[in-house]
Amino acid sequence: GYSQLPRSVHGLTGAPEWPAIRAQLPDLKDKRVLDLGCGFGWFSRWAKEHGATSVLGLDLSEKMLSRAKSETHDDAIEYEVSDLEQLALPKTVYDFAYSSLAFHYIKDFNKLVATIFQALVPGAQFTFTIEHPIFMAPTSPAWSNDDEGQRIWPLNHYSVEGERKTDWFAKGVIKHHRTLGTTLNTLITNGFEIRHVQEWAPTREQVSQYPELLEEIDRPMMLLVSAQKR
Amino acid sequence: GYSQLPRSVHGLTGAPEWPAIRAQLPDLKDKRVLDLGCGFGWFSRWAKEHGATSVLGLDLSEKMLSRAKSETHDDAIEYEVSDLEQLALPKTVYDFAYSSLAFHYIKDFNKLVATIFQALVPGAQFTFTIEHPIFMAPTSPAWSNDDEGQRIWPLNHYSVEGERKTDWFAKGVIKHHRTLGTTLNTLITNGFEIRHVQEWAPTREQVSQYPELLEEIDRPMMLLVSAQKR
Repeated sequence: GYSQLPRSVHGLTGAPEWPAIRAQLPDLKDKRVLDLGCGFGWFSRWAKEHGATSVLGLDLSEKMLSRAKSETHDDAIEYEVSDLEQLALPKTVYDFAYSSLAFHYIKDFNKLVATIFQALVPGAQFTFTIEHPIFMAPTSPAWSNDDEGQRIWPLNHYSVEGERKTDWFAKGVIKHHRTLGTTLNTLITNGFEIRHVQEWAPTREQVSQYPELLEEIDRPMMLLVSAQKR
Repeated sequence: GYSQLPRSVHGLTGAPEWPAIRAQLPDLKDKRVLDLGCGFGWFSRWAKEHGATSVLGLDLSEKMLSRAKSETHDDAIEYEVSDLEQLALPKTVYDFAYSSLAFHYIKDFNKLVATIFQALVPGAQFTFTIEHPIFMAPTSPAWSNDDEGQRIWPLNHYSVEGERKTDWFAKGVIKHHRTLGTTLNTLITNGFEIRHVQEWAPTREQVSQYPELLEEIDRPMMLLVSAQKR
């Protein structure tokens, strides 16, 4: 199950996109940090270790939070069960918001972004990853080969936004596909300024260490976005 | 050839993405406009008719510019042969820059964006379309069907930036593939603020009028970006 994934066992360093995320993070010293979809709390603890004053980690999974709590020994890190679809936060109190691979489960992204925007102080950064829409869109999201034996990703329904059902670890998990344009425009119309957009691909070094990452070069699986509250 | 395309025969209204572009245009009244890759001058004339003070249309093709000139009877519209790879422009003199489906032929996009940024006045808008990277990336960019008979776009090499050769109207035309992230980050690092990102898809009305547009919903062919000089 999910807890056996490299990123669950080894934490941040088990996620190949972590170096790219880390390169986009602001200095966390004296920052009040929001970790949306914190899971086992890997980033919450990392943020605290890197200077954050306080961290609020939110997740829907009580099971994940219970492991997060048992592995965290720091009163400045708080964990709370929270459905991001119904998120309510105090206004203008956080200096940085972070989320890793959670927002593609959210139906009402606009509402969530508005809530996050309100919760941040002016100038605060917001950095998140989601599954890339190219990865989410297809009716049959599985590699195949073309007539010349080239690996291809069978893209279709890219502009058909809405539900996608997958059987990843659990049957019938529902994700919400949005085009890249919609994701960015939602940030912009809510007042965020886009600072960086990265369609994550492994580095040469990563591919030579983990050859299975090569397929990520054919179609991006993850999208990394950094934005800033004006 | 190219001059027989609906967009060449009917101009702006022959381009299905025109309503989407038009919705993103600023009020052109009293604006000095730059039209990069102006072709037959359709947009240059439209801009002047919609209030622009002056328009400079640039294109590499003398043949296209010759038709543009013959169809333009307005001293406030100037056309010049120009290789956008070597573009030089006066500083801080234009109020709006526009380009339709030209920048995917440009190798050094960063240099071009820097030149455009310098040529614009603070607050000026920059709106352009390019071929979408999903459209440009594949080694075999042609529709096929999967085992269930679904139309699919065989995406691969998305993160492999660089040359793509196609035989569109002329043999061996060279285009330059960049990820969407690279295109946006190039604007951002040059000082532009991203205002709108649209992966163009036809409306329901357009599909019922032109059923062949339905495939554009499976994978976007065009990308529309609006940015603003701070």
